[in-house]
Amino acid sequence: MTPYDLWYWPGIPGRGEFVRLALEAGGIPYRDRAREDGVGEEGLMADMAARRPKPFAPPYLVAGELVIAQTANILLFLGDEHGLAPEDRAGRLLAHQYQLTVADIVAEAHDTHHPVALDAYYEDQKPEAARRAASFREARIPKFLGWFEQALDGREWLVGNTWSYADLSLFQLVEGLDFAFPKRMAAVADDIAGVRALHGRVKALPSLAGYLASDRRIPFGDGIFRHYPALDRA
Amino acid sequence: MTPYDLWYWPGIPGRGEFVRLALEAGGIPYRDRAREDGVGEEGLMADMAARRPKPFAPPYLVAGELVIAQTANILLFLGDEHGLAPEDRAGRLLAHQYQLTVADIVAEAHDTHHPVALDAYYEDQKPEAARRAASFREARIPKFLGWFEQALDGREWLVGNTWSYADLSLFQLVEGLDFAFPKRMAAVADDIAGVRALHGRVKALPSLAGYLASDRRIPFGDGIFRHYPALDRA
Repeated sequence: MTPYDLWYWPGIPGRGEFVRLALEAGGIPYRDRAREDGVGEEGLMADMAARRPKPFAPPYLVAGELVIAQTANILLFLGDEHGLAPEDRAGRLLAHQYQLTVADIVAEAHDTHHPVALDAYYEDQKPEAARRAASFREARIPKFLGWFEQALDGREWLVGNTWSYADLSLFQLVEGLDFAFPKRMAAVADDIAGVRALHGRVKALPSLAGYLASDRRIPFGDGIFRHYPALDRA
Repeated sequence: MTPYDLWYWPGIPGRGEFVRLALEAGGIPYRDRAREDGVGEEGLMADMAARRPKPFAPPYLVAGELVIAQTANILLFLGDEHGLAPEDRAGRLLAHQYQLTVADIVAEAHDTHHPVALDAYYEDQKPEAARRAASFREARIPKFLGWFEQALDGREWLVGNTWSYADLSLFQLVEGLDFAFPKRMAAVADDIAGVRALHGRVKALPSLAGYLASDRRIPFGDGIFRHYPALDRA
C-alpha cells in the first residue's frame, strides 16, 4: 500500500508522537513528511495552508484522498483500519474514550507552563505557571492516573486481551509526566502500580523496541511536556 | 426501543448540552436521569461511582449494555446509530474532527475563568483570568471561529448536504460565546458571517424549536460559559 503521510512539527514529540507510536507499533508504513530533508516547519505550514478544509493544527494524516486531523480522530481511523483497537463496538468506543481522556490531561499538562497566554513565553507567566502546576500536581495527576488505575482493574491492557492505541497513548502520557514532573511521579508511583506496569509492557513491545531506540524517537524538550524544576515537587 | 439514559450535572448546560442537542434534534428518546425527581447531583455521583470502569466525568450515556463517556465519543456513537453524521468514512471522520475542535475551544473557554486552579473559585484567580481571557478574546476566538468559517467555505453545513451533530455543536459553541463574550462576538461578527448563518439555521430546525423553547433547555450561568463583564471587551 502507499505509505501514509504524517504531518507534524518536526522538532518536538508533541501530539504527533501519539500517532507515531501507533504507526510504529502497528508496523504501518508512513512518511514523516516535515522531518524529511528540505521540508521542515516551512514545508508543513505550506502544506497545511494549501489544504481545503485546512486542518486546524498538526498532526494530520494523509491517507490517499483522506486528510484526517485531530490526534484522537487519526487514532480512531488507524485503530479501525489496522486492528489497533478491538473490533467490537463496545471495545472501539472504550479505547476512544481512554484516548480522549489522555488528550484532556495532555492539554492540562501543556497549560502548566502556559496557563494565561498560549501565545507568550513561559518566562512571561511564571507566577501563574507555579500556581497552575501546583493544582496539576496535587489534584489532577492523582485524579487522572488514579482513574486509569481503576480502569485497568488489575488487567494487563486497557481494553481487551492485547494492546490497543489507548495503551500506547497512556505509555506516552506517563513518559511525558515522568520527564516534566519526576518528583511528583515518584511520589505517586505506589498508587498507580498497574499504570506503571502497563508503561513497562508497552516499552518492551517487540514492535516498538527498534523505534524507541532509534533517532526517529524525538526526545522531550520545549513541547507539551517540559521540565521546569520550579514546577515540580513531590 | 428502550430510551437512552443521559447522565449529566443537572444545573448547567455544560458538555451535556452537546449530547442533548443531538438527542433532541434527532428525535431520539432519552431520559435525563439527574434531572428526574429525587435524583439530582447525588444520584449522579452515586451512579457514576458504582460503574466499572467509572466514567472519568459526566456526561455519559447508557445504551443497554454500553456505557459511553466523553462528549465527542457519545456523539460519534449517536451519529453512527441514528444518522446524525454522514455514513461515508470521510464524512464521519470530518464530522468527528469538527466536534473535537469544538471540544478544544470549549475547554479554553472554561479556562478563561479558571486559568490556574480548576478546584478554586473564579474570585480567587481574577487577575490571572483577566490575562487568560484577553488572550482568548484576541487570539483564540478569531482563530477558532475563523477556521470554522473557512471550513464552511460558503456552504450551509459543515459536512455534506444536511446538518450533522457537528453543526449542532458549532451552534452551541456560538450560543455560549455570545453569552460569555457578547462584546467580542459582536466585534467579530462580520468575519464569521457563515458561522453566524449556520447558527441561525440550527436554531430554526423544526426538530429543535420545541426543545429550545422548553424548560428542558437549561440557561447558561455558572458552568463552562460564564458572563463576567470584566472578562469581555470588543
